[in-house]
Amino acid sequence: MISGRVRGLSPYRTETTPCKVKLSSNELPVKFPEEVKRKIGEAVSSIPFNRYPDPKAQELREIIAERFGVSPENIVLGNGSDELIQYLSVSVGELKEGVVYPVPTFPMYGICASTLGREKFEVPLQEDFDLDLQGFLKVIREKRPALAFFSYPNNPTGNCFDEEKIKKIRNEGVFTVLDEAYYSFSGKTFLADAVQREDTVVLRTLSKVGLAGLRVGILIAEEEVAKELNKVRLPFNITYPSQVIAKLMLTEFYHVIEEHVKMVIEERERLMAELCKMDGVKVYPSHANFFLFKTPYPAGLVHGELIKEGVLVRDVSHLPGLEGCLRVTVGFPEENDAFLFALQKVLRRL
Amino acid sequence: MISGRVRGLSPYRTETTPCKVKLSSNELPVKFPEEVKRKIGEAVSSIPFNRYPDPKAQELREIIAERFGVSPENIVLGNGSDELIQYLSVSVGELKEGVVYPVPTFPMYGICASTLGREKFEVPLQEDFDLDLQGFLKVIREKRPALAFFSYPNNPTGNCFDEEKIKKIRNEGVFTVLDEAYYSFSGKTFLADAVQREDTVVLRTLSKVGLAGLRVGILIAEEEVAKELNKVRLPFNITYPSQVIAKLMLTEFYHVIEEHVKMVIEERERLMAELCKMDGVKVYPSHANFFLFKTPYPAGLVHGELIKEGVLVRDVSHLPGLEGCLRVTVGFPEENDAFLFALQKVLRRL
Repeated sequence: MISGRVRGLSPYRTETTPCKVKLSSNELPVKFPEEVKRKIGEAVSSIPFNRYPDPKAQELREIIAERFGVSPENIVLGNGSDELIQYLSVSVGELKEGVVYPVPTFPMYGICASTLGREKFEVPLQEDFDLDLQGFLKVIREKRPALAFFSYPNNPTGNCFDEEKIKKIRNEGVFTVLDEAYYSFSGKTFLADAVQREDTVVLRTLSKVGLAGLRVGILIAEEEVAKELNKVRLPFNITYPSQVIAKLMLTEFYHVIEEHVKMVIEERERLMAELCKMDGVKVYPSHANFFLFKTPYPAGLVHGELIKEGVLVRDVSHLPGLEGCLRVTVGFPEENDAFLFALQKVLRRL
Repeated sequence: MISGRVRGLSPYRTETTPCKVKLSSNELPVKFPEEVKRKIGEAVSSIPFNRYPDPKAQELREIIAERFGVSPENIVLGNGSDELIQYLSVSVGELKEGVVYPVPTFPMYGICASTLGREKFEVPLQEDFDLDLQGFLKVIREKRPALAFFSYPNNPTGNCFDEEKIKKIRNEGVFTVLDEAYYSFSGKTFLADAVQREDTVVLRTLSKVGLAGLRVGILIAEEEVAKELNKVRLPFNITYPSQVIAKLMLTEFYHVIEEHVKMVIEERERLMAELCKMDGVKVYPSHANFFLFKTPYPAGLVHGELIKEGVLVRDVSHLPGLEGCLRVTVGFPEENDAFLFALQKVLRRL
């Protein structure tokens, strides 16, 4: 009695091979100081767990709004960006209108569309991983999708698309979502548009700044748009512990996050430079905390050999346009060294 | 550019008037012993927050499965039952097929249907708050809704519907959801059916057993049904802290939950008996941790006067068939005494 829409979906796959060095999920490498752990423990142990959390997450929204220089009324929180993508997929346009996005990209845009039975228009990226503007314009003019998603910078390619191309696509009248999950590593944003325009929203997340375990996604929108999206939000979607811990980390301990982000940006440059020195290895530019690379050998083989050396990266070579590519997350300096050492060893062996 | 479906929704209202004695949200009264708080603090402070939580919540599902005497493969977890109701509303049948449920009941069934643009068929309860079997059969035969929700026991009326009526309704070929959020206080369940049949699922929750802050909803279904529903589940929907705390509370400290549930059942009987002694007060039978009562005065007036006395209950008198009714959650003995005292005072005054 389950719909064919759902029966036709594939289960979401996550890479769960246990490895000593895990550079596969674009998580921020963070070791919380003892003081942070102690304060988190104290704050959580005094939560009245029998009570529902604040349905508006008012204090957390105020803290986030101040950090972003917007009003709390511009903010909708989700149980991770995933939930916000789901809310947008339900709310923007009619379900008989399609959704458009480039490929390859973050799979959740397509999954949410499929779940709701919305038509998906997937426009392949150019060879340089930028948007195919003509391809987009053609689809939008012919098929009139209501909703466009852009991962900015794009996962898994790591680049920010040309801003002007995004604006030209938006000019065609399609509601435009900029998923800026990796903003901390790119510094490029459509935030000003999101606050002012009714056709643009920005997604951010705490998952890529050291707090993936909390599941806090952040949507920034013009106030009226935010008000409508809040109507489809489940009333208690941010748990009590996540509200408490996020508040603590975004105030008293924000410097811990900032330091680790800075470290990752520096390590990204070092790691890319080191990889470029390796014979036959090609590295792709990145504005994120991960990047793509290619070796002369089949990606699946390199992936498996790296696991044997205790290093887990993501094999993305099955994706269109990414033949031979692997994606590596930037970790702690010693993790990056371990990865470099392992890759060198594997390449020599092959 | 937001759909009319969404613009037409009303924002979800929650009662947030601050009161000394809060008996308005059907939460379990629990004071966690210091040892529990300490262990929760310890467990949470050692979470690697930078990592995504286990997407399958495997250990938690195993613990819950054992408690329920089912297999982990029978279980789908949600960010509260709300999310599971949403998943069912998306997954069962086609979106052009309607959803049927009695009224008054838990509002989330209707909200999720409206959000998706599914037609809602609301069958008013009989005067004794049991199901109107003929009304249901007529709607199902004429309108062919794909999905039926029954809150069992029903919120806000507190009673369990006649089991045979539910089975007769299900026999018409409608996928049947038993929302057993208050099972711990009723002991009545369709669990055996849910595990075996493809047309029946049961919802449980940790929210009514002292852990509302964690947002853990539990769906029990036949394995193939659970497998399909897991496809629409967002992959990391149960946060890391919620997994860790729930595991602790359902193993080492389960006795704390059990003791408080037992206390509430005893207090429910005492509280109802005391209310019955009051002049002009009518009390409705309940299998839940709350019940309805009526006084000779307008419910809104009594509600407001009780707030002045520092006691918050829920005014449900605007709901069809509940003219004059208030809903009170059973609290700690001293909270219940405070409520009794306040009500007596208010009634004398009016």
